[in-house]
Amino acid sequence: MTSTVGQVIRCRAAVAWEAGKPLVMEEVEVAPPQANEVRVKILFTSLCHTDVYFWEAKNPLFPRIYGHEAGGIVESVGEGVTDLKPGDHVLPVFTGECKECAHCKSEESNMCDLLRINTDRGVMLNDGKSRFSINGKPIYHFVGTSTFSEYTVIHVGCLAKINPLAPLDKVCVLSCGISTGLGATLNVAKPAKGSTVAVFGLGAVGLAAAEGARIAGASRIIGVDLNSNRFEEAKKFGATEFVNPKDYNKPVQEVIAEMTNGGVDRSVECTGNIDAMISAFECVHDGWGVAVLVGVPHKDAVFKTHPMNLLNERTLKGTFFGNYKPRSDLPSVVEKYMSKVQ
Amino acid sequence: MTSTVGQVIRCRAAVAWEAGKPLVMEEVEVAPPQANEVRVKILFTSLCHTDVYFWEAKNPLFPRIYGHEAGGIVESVGEGVTDLKPGDHVLPVFTGECKECAHCKSEESNMCDLLRINTDRGVMLNDGKSRFSINGKPIYHFVGTSTFSEYTVIHVGCLAKINPLAPLDKVCVLSCGISTGLGATLNVAKPAKGSTVAVFGLGAVGLAAAEGARIAGASRIIGVDLNSNRFEEAKKFGATEFVNPKDYNKPVQEVIAEMTNGGVDRSVECTGNIDAMISAFECVHDGWGVAVLVGVPHKDAVFKTHPMNLLNERTLKGTFFGNYKPRSDLPSVVEKYMSKVQ
Repeated sequence: MTSTVGQVIRCRAAVAWEAGKPLVMEEVEVAPPQANEVRVKILFTSLCHTDVYFWEAKNPLFPRIYGHEAGGIVESVGEGVTDLKPGDHVLPVFTGECKECAHCKSEESNMCDLLRINTDRGVMLNDGKSRFSINGKPIYHFVGTSTFSEYTVIHVGCLAKINPLAPLDKVCVLSCGISTGLGATLNVAKPAKGSTVAVFGLGAVGLAAAEGARIAGASRIIGVDLNSNRFEEAKKFGATEFVNPKDYNKPVQEVIAEMTNGGVDRSVECTGNIDAMISAFECVHDGWGVAVLVGVPHKDAVFKTHPMNLLNERTLKGTFFGNYKPRSDLPSVVEKYMSKVQ
Repeated sequence: MTSTVGQVIRCRAAVAWEAGKPLVMEEVEVAPPQANEVRVKILFTSLCHTDVYFWEAKNPLFPRIYGHEAGGIVESVGEGVTDLKPGDHVLPVFTGECKECAHCKSEESNMCDLLRINTDRGVMLNDGKSRFSINGKPIYHFVGTSTFSEYTVIHVGCLAKINPLAPLDKVCVLSCGISTGLGATLNVAKPAKGSTVAVFGLGAVGLAAAEGARIAGASRIIGVDLNSNRFEEAKKFGATEFVNPKDYNKPVQEVIAEMTNGGVDRSVECTGNIDAMISAFECVHDGWGVAVLVGVPHKDAVFKTHPMNLLNERTLKGTFFGNYKPRSDLPSVVEKYMSKVQ
């Protein structure tokens, strides 16, 4: 077997040539990694709605290779990369951790100044160019990962080195939505044992948020969704009760307050709908309630509430990627999965 | 000297007969304390704007005795009162602590279900009647304290027992605005040593919030006020820099973000103006910034912000009386003052 290190690799990738048009399997050329970059052989990749959202979007970054929930193995590393070596198992992450900026040095933030998610950038930071091409024509990257390719080049700061025993076909989904929901509950809402938690939206992120509440020992986990068909599945992730706002002719925050003697201790909003955000905030108990916003809203959305809802000692927080730092914290999420399946 | 215990006491009080009309010094009769009540000889009382606000308000509770920032000595106690005895030095507080409800049992809340501030109630809880009268005509209480009287009757849950060495003429002001501002910073914003703090509004509450930041070891304390005449005095309370929003033709949150490389670590809003609340929230740094709202807004005010300001990992909290529990925590605020003057 000839080493591919330092060579261009030709492999297959699913290329988006135009917004909204079917991806086309193409043979692409993947250049070697430059300084602080790593070339990764992608073994498994899953599909997140964010891929679809930007594939549909009318933006100028086409052709492009989407994909950001994946698992792979390091093929080669560029200059200056010391944390990873060929053969390491990694999860690419759509946002990074440079370990040098004020955010990375803060115990509270994971919003790295250098490698924070940037959906408008289609090139690598090192030289402002793409590592993908077809017959010399560059193909844009997506959120620094582009995992819909057999090989991809990623900044070392966007790769979590994980336990090589972890099954990559399973843990690949931990690199985005699952950690986002799980971390929102475990790292930000931090429900106490025995407390009550409402989760708005029972998609993948919301189910992971419910799972976080279960792990934290919440006694009541109220799932809220406009689609009652999701309720049965949500029980597997810890939800103990359900509310479909359509079943009531009053605001869901009032329904929840009545169910819980004044409000839940914690709520986690995983829909991105602005009305759900407001309900999620107003359904927490005065005096100690904490609402955590996860879902990404429409760009024109405005969060509105009467300030007395805050002055009555409620807390409103937002979170990004579950407040996990990709390199420092994601390996521990994989370990959580491993310790459960063993 | 004849004991007054169990007797009606006749003493002077400043009575508000009508909204907005000058208070009149009257001789009033003060009935003995009933179950869970304490009769207190008021030695010093100060004037808070909240007294003025409700004196001006067109509500049906007249005649009434205002006053809620005071210091006094227990004259006698009613049935069931074991925490206090005649001679104890106390600060009456406009909100209480029953020690039994979910809020009192919570480590986070000070919003007692039984004794939470109620400006609409002019009578005692025990029998729904007033302890004040003039020739048999009842005079209403105000927020359970009515300290503009030489003697007053207060629920035991609204009295903080303090160090008898503390000068009551000084510490009487700790029972409302000063603790509200100080606690907002120390108990809720919790700035780390070396951090940056913005304080909106440099009245008594804001000065106390700045003092809290100074005690916490903040390196930069930015005072924000529309009245620049307040800046010099605020230096004594720890403020290191000042911004008058009138001096800029852009939002004050942008001014502060530019001064602090992206935003302050903590902000405390002490005006109650809704625009200042929004600025106070939006001027904190993404990733870790915490904004604390203290000022009481107009009843029709709406807090509005783009939800991305939250999702970028900012936190918005409200607080009431600095999150101090009146009976449990206020004595320690008095001790803070005592240890400073000795």
